[in-house]
Amino acid sequence: MIIVLKREASPEIAQEILRRIEEKDLKPLHMPGTERVVLGALGDERILAELALDSHPMVESLKPILAPYKMVSREMHPHDTIVRLGKTAIGGRGFKVIAGPCAVETESQMRNTARFAKAAGAHGLRAGAFKPRTSPYAFQGHGVEGLKLLRATGDEFGLPVVTEVMETADVDIVAEYADALQIGARNMQNFSLLKAVGRCGKPVVLKRGMAAKVEDLLLAAEYMLAEGNEQVILCERGIRTFETATRNTFDISAIPVVKKLSHLPIVADPSHGAGRRDMVAPMARAAVAAGADGLIIEVHCDPDHALSDGAQSMFPAQFDRLMAELRIIAPAIGRSICLEPVRRGGWGS
Amino acid sequence: MIIVLKREASPEIAQEILRRIEEKDLKPLHMPGTERVVLGALGDERILAELALDSHPMVESLKPILAPYKMVSREMHPHDTIVRLGKTAIGGRGFKVIAGPCAVETESQMRNTARFAKAAGAHGLRAGAFKPRTSPYAFQGHGVEGLKLLRATGDEFGLPVVTEVMETADVDIVAEYADALQIGARNMQNFSLLKAVGRCGKPVVLKRGMAAKVEDLLLAAEYMLAEGNEQVILCERGIRTFETATRNTFDISAIPVVKKLSHLPIVADPSHGAGRRDMVAPMARAAVAAGADGLIIEVHCDPDHALSDGAQSMFPAQFDRLMAELRIIAPAIGRSICLEPVRRGGWGS
Amino acid sequence: MIIVLKREASPEIAQEILRRIEEKDLKPLHMPGTERVVLGALGDERILAELALDSHPMVESLKPILAPYKMVSREMHPHDTIVRLGKTAIGGRGFKVIAGPCAVETESQMRNTARFAKAAGAHGLRAGAFKPRTSPYAFQGHGVEGLKLLRATGDEFGLPVVTEVMETADVDIVAEYADALQIGARNMQNFSLLKAVGRCGKPVVLKRGMAAKVEDLLLAAEYMLAEGNEQVILCERGIRTFETATRNTFDISAIPVVKKLSHLPIVADPSHGAGRRDMVAPMARAAVAAGADGLIIEVHCDPDHALSDGAQSMFPAQFDRLMAELRIIAPAIGRSICLEPVRRGGWGS
Amino acid sequence: MIIVLKREASPEIAQEILRRIEEKDLKPLHMPGTERVVLGALGDERILAELALDSHPMVESLKPILAPYKMVSREMHPHDTIVRLGKTAIGGRGFKVIAGPCAVETESQMRNTARFAKAAGAHGLRAGAFKPRTSPYAFQGHGVEGLKLLRATGDEFGLPVVTEVMETADVDIVAEYADALQIGARNMQNFSLLKAVGRCGKPVVLKRGMAAKVEDLLLAAEYMLAEGNEQVILCERGIRTFETATRNTFDISAIPVVKKLSHLPIVADPSHGAGRRDMVAPMARAAVAAGADGLIIEVHCDPDHALSDGAQSMFPAQFDRLMAELRIIAPAIGRSICLEPVRRGGWGS
Repeated sequence: MIIVLKREASPEIAQEILRRIEEKDLKPLHMPGTERVVLGALGDERILAELALDSHPMVESLKPILAPYKMVSREMHPHDTIVRLGKTAIGGRGFKVIAGPCAVETESQMRNTARFAKAAGAHGLRAGAFKPRTSPYAFQGHGVEGLKLLRATGDEFGLPVVTEVMETADVDIVAEYADALQIGARNMQNFSLLKAVGRCGKPVVLKRGMAAKVEDLLLAAEYMLAEGNEQVILCERGIRTFETATRNTFDISAIPVVKKLSHLPIVADPSHGAGRRDMVAPMARAAVAAGADGLIIEVHCDPDHALSDGAQSMFPAQFDRLMAELRIIAPAIGRSICLEPVRRGGWGS
Repeated sequence: MIIVLKREASPEIAQEILRRIEEKDLKPLHMPGTERVVLGALGDERILAELALDSHPMVESLKPILAPYKMVSREMHPHDTIVRLGKTAIGGRGFKVIAGPCAVETESQMRNTARFAKAAGAHGLRAGAFKPRTSPYAFQGHGVEGLKLLRATGDEFGLPVVTEVMETADVDIVAEYADALQIGARNMQNFSLLKAVGRCGKPVVLKRGMAAKVEDLLLAAEYMLAEGNEQVILCERGIRTFETATRNTFDISAIPVVKKLSHLPIVADPSHGAGRRDMVAPMARAAVAAGADGLIIEVHCDPDHALSDGAQSMFPAQFDRLMAELRIIAPAIGRSICLEPVRRGGWGS
Repeated sequence: MIIVLKREASPEIAQEILRRIEEKDLKPLHMPGTERVVLGALGDERILAELALDSHPMVESLKPILAPYKMVSREMHPHDTIVRLGKTAIGGRGFKVIAGPCAVETESQMRNTARFAKAAGAHGLRAGAFKPRTSPYAFQGHGVEGLKLLRATGDEFGLPVVTEVMETADVDIVAEYADALQIGARNMQNFSLLKAVGRCGKPVVLKRGMAAKVEDLLLAAEYMLAEGNEQVILCERGIRTFETATRNTFDISAIPVVKKLSHLPIVADPSHGAGRRDMVAPMARAAVAAGADGLIIEVHCDPDHALSDGAQSMFPAQFDRLMAELRIIAPAIGRSICLEPVRRGGWGS
Repeated sequence: MIIVLKREASPEIAQEILRRIEEKDLKPLHMPGTERVVLGALGDERILAELALDSHPMVESLKPILAPYKMVSREMHPHDTIVRLGKTAIGGRGFKVIAGPCAVETESQMRNTARFAKAAGAHGLRAGAFKPRTSPYAFQGHGVEGLKLLRATGDEFGLPVVTEVMETADVDIVAEYADALQIGARNMQNFSLLKAVGRCGKPVVLKRGMAAKVEDLLLAAEYMLAEGNEQVILCERGIRTFETATRNTFDISAIPVVKKLSHLPIVADPSHGAGRRDMVAPMARAAVAAGADGLIIEVHCDPDHALSDGAQSMFPAQFDRLMAELRIIAPAIGRSICLEPVRRGGWGS
């Protein structure tokens, strides 16, 4: 930590702060300059919080040298973490696609969508049973019945399933049915939920909050690693900016930034990032080109009649075309995409 | 709702949509123009969500006419709501100040701080027992022991108490000790928590999320009113922008905007808005001048040794001076501040 | 400057950088830590730019200690600068209000508006002759004819005049007619214009750009001080954020931040900050409460028929009421407002 | 235009507005609803500005139906515009790369960089002679001498040249030397400059401002088309958001949004978007995958000694590798990249 003192700070103040640093077993540094005295404290910066130097009246600013997260940092763990997802995995050299509708609606909707997604080459199935909605008047999800239907559909088509958990009390029941639990953007700093999911032992997809810096996202993941859960997949889904042409601004650069700072895998959710169906394919292609480990994409067998987020769900034919494009782009940056469709079954039925 | 069709939409498409609008018992409107066909649907716009027109391939855009919130709207309820807070109240012509430390730390810290705040004219006491922290390594609060200490201190000094609740499972215990429950900025869209707090029957302080539009804040409040709890105080505490000179950008204009749109009272939290002690007084003065119903302010008997947020906590003397300034500004805009200090007791004990 | 090296940087690299720092006559510092080597360079940080350390492959990050601006900094110039504006002045303990229509339209519009503004206690007159407009199809201003009309109106009513200059070629002609030149938000980083205005010798009102940090605003002012013009008034007028309820987010905290960092006066333009007439008075009151040195306010004798920005122009009666409120708030924070209306003449003529 | 009246608006007010709409030869519409009266005005919405309905006391909001730009809209001009750039062109099915240093520094720097860029397959050369710098103490460019050196280097290597123009007075001289004039992000709403460049007849690269919505960018381009210059290339280079891990947030979704709304070509500048060399390649790959028509990339023969923006300039070997990746990705989305290097000459000279 670098501690910049105010211009008017006396030498005695500097000595007192240096002494407090030393008492904490950190290495103190004294750097008197022409315009300012600068101090340093080398060692674990978390200990420094106890000194509350940020509220010292003669301290102008604190400049941390080390990142505030530890376990998620690539420095402590140089190799990529690979997170299992049922029989597949996210991270490493593979590129994976998790597809499905916004919400679990009906058995036929789930089966038709899963059949198509599987045929097009998807590796996992997503759908919400508990839905966070900005308005209390919007469809809130089918709850446990939805979880059962999602699980049954995943099993029928051999697809691992990912679904959102919205509160601590639901962690156990969601963990019982899902291969990975998703924490939504609005709950990224619901620290009670982060701890509970951290303790549940299941893989997690952690979505970036709309106002979260990459550093905040990594700190939120640190909450789960600190509870013993290293199976965390990060997810970029757009941040809130002044631009209104898209619902959110998909922060494509977060992907290489996360890759550099952390060993955790990162996937992209272009459906929520854009909020418009016609923007999903370009954003998805951009995400793989930028180095993402996978995608979470909303597809629906019949988007025009979806109960939620229909406007951003891809039509089956759009998804098929996207998968074909991804099969070319992924290898261009050294990604083994393995998206060979198992069978090209018909649509509907 | 105004429905703008794409240029290429046929007359048949327009007729079909008009028919679907009519089937929902809404009044359909047909406005053929030179460049576009525009349709209208007059009536309860919430019903329109079922038509999923936003995902219709021939619909270019939807323009709502009515606000998506109902019960929080001033249209439905023209008079100001007054929310009780122990023996005082927030809203109407009064101006109230709730002060206290960021976190409950010790008995002497709580008593010293409350004594001073009361003497300076504060109407309520705030302090956190459950603390949401960006880093898992930061102090997380004293939990139920903290609640008890807060309640005891409030009772001793005759100050109603406000404290944060972070998860559904804690709603009952927090409601047992507090006069009002606070929902923090990071939980503003934790919809499970909103519903639980909406059902608990206690007054609520709902803080605006860092990425929340005023409309999102009002919709979050709507969740609680829809559960039957009308005792909701809104709180502006800063939004996230590109500016780095302050921790957040305190959105002063949200105060008159909320006043215009809603009957709910709104207070300001300049401590979190600024994140720097020396910015708290100017922001607090600005908030009352802009029409806020009150303030939530961090004060600490000894900010240099606070366990959290010391840098933004006011010193006792700063708070005293601020209260004196507020006593002049509030009446300038017709506010009865009633901040006559009960007694001018000494500091410390 | 603090220079944090990458983990993998060798001791030789550190020595080489220290040697380069020393060659520039700066004081080098070596701070080897357990996880990182940190270097320091004390002295004029502008010289360091020549070393291009930010592109050094073994440098992880640079942390400046000193502000990048010099002449605008309060450190170099602790006392408030007072900028003359005709026979009045901005800065110091006074509080001044510059009012007028968005654009110069007609002689009767200018005279009616000036008469009213003067009667209500305004100290200066503003109106645009050259108008920056987002759309090429919007009214672009009356040019030199507008300047003449503004000057004549100011002279008639004894009000100094402020008007915008949009390009280098117009600086001389605008300086001929105006008491102060305004640089608009969209031109805040039009560096050619900043230099030309810096050389013209006239007082300047520099508006903050919509994406400008306070530091950027101060650096833009530094351009003019570096050209020899110290007569610069800064102006907060709102920044662009995700909030759509107001046209811009009026950054009230910029006022105390600027006051702390710089000796230059700062005024607020709540009309552009809000973009809505009904928000102007609360924002104006908030600005004075937060410590601004003055206001620039759009008033119009007949806003409903204004050629531009009518929606944000105050009606005469609204302006009158606002001035009355300011006369109470300003003294609460030690401001001598001197807003005694010279005469309470009737409206119209 | 849809005109939503306030709840309290009387039927007479509605009739008066309808009459004013009709007087402008627009088609008026009356839509009385249960909660509001809604009016419509069909026809050229630019005419409506004259009615100043946004400042009408009984108008709650205006909702435009048509885009405010006309000539840049794809509706008026469905086919892609192709902009010539010396002997090459931007737009259509090709994908083009313009590379070069941030600033013209020396003859050997320019020749070494151009030789390498050409060998790697670049189609154009960029470098600044007039440099906009946030700080007045930073290198400001070599001016006309820089222009001459850029032109000579372009001619020697057969590369068309692009360079920035910062003020109206320089348009002629820059147009004399450059194949295309660049308008920088900070000047995107310097309307005087837009008009001057619009009249100069040369192709233009218009960079998106840091606070500009896509709509603002298109309106800025409209200024030039309105002056008769249709040879406009738009350029996404990042917007300002709360994220600090990158200098700007590269808005990748702006590319498909612009493609949908306008016929003008759009290129991406990932160097300024990211501000960090190691982020340039992922952003560049993402841009082509998202559908950009080309790239503007900073490369330097010796970035460690660049006079400006060295930290974001690619090393020659990085650029070479990027070009190889682009040759695979571009065809995946139907782009003919034609990046076959003419010769694989050695580096240096």
